[in-house]
Amino acid sequence: MSFPTDTIAALGTPAGTSAIAVVRASGPQVRAMVAAIFGVTPPPRHAQHADYRDAKGTLVDDVLFTFFAAPNSFTGEDTVEISCHGNPFIAQKILEDLFARGCRPAEAGEFSKRAFLNGRLDLSQAEAVMDLIHARSERALAAANQQLRGALGRQMELLISQLVNVLAIIEAYIDFPDEDLPAENRQAVLLQLEQLQTATARLLATSHYGAMLRDGIKTVILGEPNAGKSSLLNRLVGRERALVSAEPGTTRDYLEERILVGPHALRLIDTAGLNPAPSSLEKRGMDKTLEQAAEADLFLWVLDATRPLPALPASTAGRLSPANTIVVVNKSDLPAAPGLAVPTGYPCVPVSALTGIGLEELRTLVSGLADSFQVKTGDDLIAINARHAHALNQARQCLETATAKLCERGSTELVASDLRGALDAFGQISGKVDNEQVLDRLFSTFCIGK
Amino acid sequence: MSFPTDTIAALGTPAGTSAIAVVRASGPQVRAMVAAIFGVTPPPRHAQHADYRDAKGTLVDDVLFTFFAAPNSFTGEDTVEISCHGNPFIAQKILEDLFARGCRPAEAGEFSKRAFLNGRLDLSQAEAVMDLIHARSERALAAANQQLRGALGRQMELLISQLVNVLAIIEAYIDFPDEDLPAENRQAVLLQLEQLQTATARLLATSHYGAMLRDGIKTVILGEPNAGKSSLLNRLVGRERALVSAEPGTTRDYLEERILVGPHALRLIDTAGLNPAPSSLEKRGMDKTLEQAAEADLFLWVLDATRPLPALPASTAGRLSPANTIVVVNKSDLPAAPGLAVPTGYPCVPVSALTGIGLEELRTLVSGLADSFQVKTGDDLIAINARHAHALNQARQCLETATAKLCERGSTELVASDLRGALDAFGQISGKVDNEQVLDRLFSTFCIGK
Repeated sequence: MSFPTDTIAALGTPAGTSAIAVVRASGPQVRAMVAAIFGVTPPPRHAQHADYRDAKGTLVDDVLFTFFAAPNSFTGEDTVEISCHGNPFIAQKILEDLFARGCRPAEAGEFSKRAFLNGRLDLSQAEAVMDLIHARSERALAAANQQLRGALGRQMELLISQLVNVLAIIEAYIDFPDEDLPAENRQAVLLQLEQLQTATARLLATSHYGAMLRDGIKTVILGEPNAGKSSLLNRLVGRERALVSAEPGTTRDYLEERILVGPHALRLIDTAGLNPAPSSLEKRGMDKTLEQAAEADLFLWVLDATRPLPALPASTAGRLSPANTIVVVNKSDLPAAPGLAVPTGYPCVPVSALTGIGLEELRTLVSGLADSFQVKTGDDLIAINARHAHALNQARQCLETATAKLCERGSTELVASDLRGALDAFGQISGKVDNEQVLDRLFSTFCIGK
Repeated sequence: MSFPTDTIAALGTPAGTSAIAVVRASGPQVRAMVAAIFGVTPPPRHAQHADYRDAKGTLVDDVLFTFFAAPNSFTGEDTVEISCHGNPFIAQKILEDLFARGCRPAEAGEFSKRAFLNGRLDLSQAEAVMDLIHARSERALAAANQQLRGALGRQMELLISQLVNVLAIIEAYIDFPDEDLPAENRQAVLLQLEQLQTATARLLATSHYGAMLRDGIKTVILGEPNAGKSSLLNRLVGRERALVSAEPGTTRDYLEERILVGPHALRLIDTAGLNPAPSSLEKRGMDKTLEQAAEADLFLWVLDATRPLPALPASTAGRLSPANTIVVVNKSDLPAAPGLAVPTGYPCVPVSALTGIGLEELRTLVSGLADSFQVKTGDDLIAINARHAHALNQARQCLETATAKLCERGSTELVASDLRGALDAFGQISGKVDNEQVLDRLFSTFCIGK
């Protein structure tokens, strides 16, 4: 891994006209650059008011600048934050001047990458920085904050130290290929491997919730035509997003809107009604509905209280359970149909999308169900991402293979090799891995200036 | 004028996802609020890393915050800048928490208004803050920077002190209505009033350049159909903005694009060609061209080098002069027409919009002409805005009336009243005026958070 010797600069705030904008630079030339631009190097972390003059001496703006001395900065390098007037033209002038003075434009995520390379953050913490920037719900924010504070990193350290212990026992026997592992050692090792597998599986189980936190909980509104699904979407979204009419089958393409329900972010999807006897065009809309239902995390099954209940298609009915479905009995402002048999066992709420009755109760039910999706992993809220899941799956396979080999009394050398594979995989999560390509790929998904 | 006793807060950076966002609060509660949120009040201007927990104790983000103690802040009040992760959801959470703790949302321009009320900036400097934020050219930036540093304010102080001297002489005679002003005093006063009028007129003359700095130099491309006006626009803009074809009269509606030429911002306007024998539809496009030409600051008069030169309509021809017009002889990559008589006396440049030949020379000519629009007012670059012009016009009228009355040996009381009117008008520019409505209207045009 090569350590950076150059100095990078980027705009840290969004482009646009506003009160202030912040330009940041980080790297070994920062201290000399600050002295050259401002004529002084104030004490670290002291916000100083000054004229910004470019290398030609032209006054660009009056700014506040703050110098951070290595290693006590976000990147761990000398850093300067220049807070100028919120004019993209000015920010660009300052950046161009910094480039003229020897900085180069920062790549996406390069500040965070340097923080990682300088040991200020482990890799899962660097990822948490991006999760923080993209969190759009309280739960997502809480998970990102915990990960930034090292919740996942600490779990991984525990697993790694346990695995290193096991590996030490095994490796002690590698030099004696003819000697078998004593029975009590084998038992102890097998027990520890089982614990490691359980812990790995528990972390892996948070992956789906992690995806929900990052992308929103995929919530599909389904039901028969004209049950009032689009009216319910509009109520929950708070505006007339979907076309609504008395004609059954008004919604053809599915619609998606992002909403917050309590601390949860939902991707709310309104679908074409499921008609037992569809026309050809209706059938195509229904196919889309079934596709969406196949991947849903949560269902709002909307019934029309004034009509008897038709059966759902088997493929979808099979996906509904009390753990992921709320029955929403709509049109409850009207007299109920005499034969209405609401499905039992599901959380259920009478609403009127027309009048707004029951909407608060529905939100409470949704929030409660969404809470139950969280997988407990001790005191910390952990919700891993796809990269972590990939590494943990690798580790799990290695641990399984090692266990199998141990049970079959295979060679300790082969067992140790598998355990080292698991150790590598664990290490990838915190970034104890010497692979520049992996790092470049990861940080390139970050935003510029971070 | 009532002084603020409440504490305001707003997002200072543009909404959007980015590395960082900055939330600012200003007012008497800031110090206590900082202590409540962060558990400490660090020394002023010290950027401190801390957890931001809301009033319920929920962790929102880890932030950098900097406290500025009154009067050494932008507003002159206790102020805090909280630099959080660049996530609109987080910025909103922090703002909501600040509101829960007793802040109220800042109105547009309210931070600058407080800076003015607390004597940190005069009114022309506060306006310069907004000019800085909206400046889109080097010249506009330079003018805003000079105004922020008090260039206009200093000029006004000179005028005001001179006027106060005159007023003192006049008022000395008010108590003696029967006594006439001695001849030497009258002469001295008339001379000083003349100087004041000259100085006022000189400032007023910068108004048009001020408008050009703020809105861009209105530059109209005109010429006969198919002379290559749209091709020239595309070349200057740097992309295929306007539809171009070999058919004369392709451009019907005029197009406007903003471009930078050297340190100048231009509003570049491509127009329908001026055809001596237009069709009915062409005639309507030409009417628009003439409207645009009537208000232009600068003309690019495009000739087709391969054709003889048709006459311009009289109304437009009358507006063209060597001081505002560049003759652009296009298609200079082709053999010139034998009878081509390029109008003399104008700055002139052969170009080929097709190949790009001559474009750099054209830009240099444009930049030079634009430079000549600047009105010299001593060493400072002053370019007043419409509000200043309104006040200066008022002052000028008062000075004229006072001069006339003095010449007619009118009553000194009436002369003094006019001079006090002029003094009021001068005072409005720096904001030595006690009118809350005027202030509210002025600052409401600022941006939120500044």
